[in-house]
Amino acid sequence: MLNQRMVGLGTQRSGIRELFEYGKKKAAEIGAENVFDFSIGNPSVPAPPSVNETAIRILNEMDPIQLHGYTSAQGDPVARKMIADSLNRRFGMNFTGDNLYMTYGAAAALCCCFNGLANPGDEFIVFAPYFPEYQVFIEGAGAKMKLIPADTEAFQINFEAFEAAINEHTKGVLVNSPNNPSGAVYSESTIRKMAEILEAKSAEYGEPIYLIADEPYREIAFEGVDIPYLPKFYNNTLVCYSWSKSLSLPGERMGYVVVPDEVDDHELVYAAIAGAGRTLGYVCAPGLFQRVCAANADETSDISVYETNRNLLTKSLREMGYSVVEPGGTFYIFPQTIIPDDIAFCKRAQFDYNLLIVPGTGFGCPGHARISFCVPTERVERSLDLFDKLAKSYR
Amino acid sequence: MLNQRMVGLGTQRSGIRELFEYGKKKAAEIGAENVFDFSIGNPSVPAPPSVNETAIRILNEMDPIQLHGYTSAQGDPVARKMIADSLNRRFGMNFTGDNLYMTYGAAAALCCCFNGLANPGDEFIVFAPYFPEYQVFIEGAGAKMKLIPADTEAFQINFEAFEAAINEHTKGVLVNSPNNPSGAVYSESTIRKMAEILEAKSAEYGEPIYLIADEPYREIAFEGVDIPYLPKFYNNTLVCYSWSKSLSLPGERMGYVVVPDEVDDHELVYAAIAGAGRTLGYVCAPGLFQRVCAANADETSDISVYETNRNLLTKSLREMGYSVVEPGGTFYIFPQTIIPDDIAFCKRAQFDYNLLIVPGTGFGCPGHARISFCVPTERVERSLDLFDKLAKSYR
Repeated sequence: MLNQRMVGLGTQRSGIRELFEYGKKKAAEIGAENVFDFSIGNPSVPAPPSVNETAIRILNEMDPIQLHGYTSAQGDPVARKMIADSLNRRFGMNFTGDNLYMTYGAAAALCCCFNGLANPGDEFIVFAPYFPEYQVFIEGAGAKMKLIPADTEAFQINFEAFEAAINEHTKGVLVNSPNNPSGAVYSESTIRKMAEILEAKSAEYGEPIYLIADEPYREIAFEGVDIPYLPKFYNNTLVCYSWSKSLSLPGERMGYVVVPDEVDDHELVYAAIAGAGRTLGYVCAPGLFQRVCAANADETSDISVYETNRNLLTKSLREMGYSVVEPGGTFYIFPQTIIPDDIAFCKRAQFDYNLLIVPGTGFGCPGHARISFCVPTERVERSLDLFDKLAKSYR
Repeated sequence: MLNQRMVGLGTQRSGIRELFEYGKKKAAEIGAENVFDFSIGNPSVPAPPSVNETAIRILNEMDPIQLHGYTSAQGDPVARKMIADSLNRRFGMNFTGDNLYMTYGAAAALCCCFNGLANPGDEFIVFAPYFPEYQVFIEGAGAKMKLIPADTEAFQINFEAFEAAINEHTKGVLVNSPNNPSGAVYSESTIRKMAEILEAKSAEYGEPIYLIADEPYREIAFEGVDIPYLPKFYNNTLVCYSWSKSLSLPGERMGYVVVPDEVDDHELVYAAIAGAGRTLGYVCAPGLFQRVCAANADETSDISVYETNRNLLTKSLREMGYSVVEPGGTFYIFPQTIIPDDIAFCKRAQFDYNLLIVPGTGFGCPGHARISFCVPTERVERSLDLFDKLAKSYR
């Protein structure tokens, strides 16, 4: 008998992936220009030229035995120092390379945190709307996900539900700002209030409650939006980062966990994360791209198209009568569906209008739909009439 | 309270790593030419030039959004087909790309198998001498490792102990041929006998017992040595491969699992492996090196130095009075220590002769020591007098 949980996870097709496959099939039938695939969160702008330039330079110049050899499990020390320096410059921190543990993207960074921290029976709090793979990672670590209903007014935090959910089993709280799927960014006042609650509850239960920040969208922030750096607000913060979105490198799988010195027993926490990486079979993050990402730690892809699309969609959807919270970052927007049944709404969008958008139910937030606007602006423009017709079809 | 198992795994320094660090320190004191570091299994020959050439060509030619984008979780279909074709050419198989699941090296491939197959209480059989990280991976999947004592005559299989160890909890058997640390290659008759036992026991317990082949050293085989391809001998075989050693790319973390069609319920087994990859946070194997390794699937580094070193060490150690089984592959040799206490022997080697070799105890095989001869031949030559003096010191 195989492990049935793993069979299930490997067999289940994600709804998003199914929409995407439908889109490809439909495009072959009626022409790609007539299908509006807003299903998938794949960056639509290339990596900045400096990424491939750095890769080629390193391939040409560095001794191949060293370049392609194992790095230490924590990551190449030179790369870690470069990344720490970049964080220090940009966020006024005092990290050294020893605060960083390099991983295969943010997914692996999260898995290291969950597996390193959790004991059986532990709980991690997650706020809706949320990236559904969190549950897979948390349960894979033998822990339990506790979901806090969305604050659908502003996609900040439903503090009453949050405070009520914390108990003696709470090992950590996971936040994702800028958020997939809402695009919302936590304000400084949201963060301060959350930190206060976490301080008080940690004291009450006599154990640290860790704040785990999943930050693949940190660099995709729109004009005037500040994304506070969480370790400044709460000591027991672990930051999970990925270059998947900022450098458009999702397939190269490169990211890290930051364990600041301010974390209680930070050396033991770092050790637990490294032990988890060992148990999960990670060995070390890929050598070439550790160096490439470190050399490009201050760069981003040209993300201006995302802001153009955000502006266009927010304004247009509101004019059509959709209720929508303006995203502060990411390449997602998460309007209310015109009817409460988001699944029926998205099916009508798909089958009647060739608009492929994802029901909020899968993100723990029914009555909404995610539009991934990491597409050329002309495609957004040509879709607007269809979104309008879709809304009108319910009147 | 952190997960203490993970803290332990992250804090524990491996004995091999400690020897390696000692060697670097000692080299700084007395000169690198006076320290003979045979501790670590890092390839000492560069990747073949075609590796970097392919990488640079792909970086120059391929659309960066596609190149650096997510591949499917199973891996890029073109890369998988190229690898399947290479296996078919070389081993007379009939694989398609759908039989392959791309992973971060063999470690991740093994973790996918253990996590995909195992239910709580399941056991995996491992033969001494063995790579100690197997235990970490197996226990990480919630299963138990059952160790079969070594056949120290030939480093084949102690069949009596093997047969006695199989029971209704046996989910799989892990083999590593060519073997780290002994360099031994299982003969066709060993494999046939093992397969017969597995067939009979699978029938007896009414459940398949999977044979998991860890094959990072497959391509490092010496003249006249044939390494049988295990799926030809036993249907329920999963092959875990890595290019770490054959292409000298250990830091790039690229490998795969093969799930042949002949495996019982092969589609469910493949799904379980994919589900495990999802739970472990793998997402997809790195995009650039999937393509680079696929394009170089028929290549190897220039591994002739390993054969030269193997010949020199086997002959010389025997002349000095060491009892040694000649390695058929890898870059390891595993002589008996002159005294039964391999730890004391290796300490004397280290402190009196600056020979850094690893006690067999850590590999589940006391009374032996591993010499990693992935070093320039002149270093082996200059060490011989010291190995001789070390042997004589016990007379």
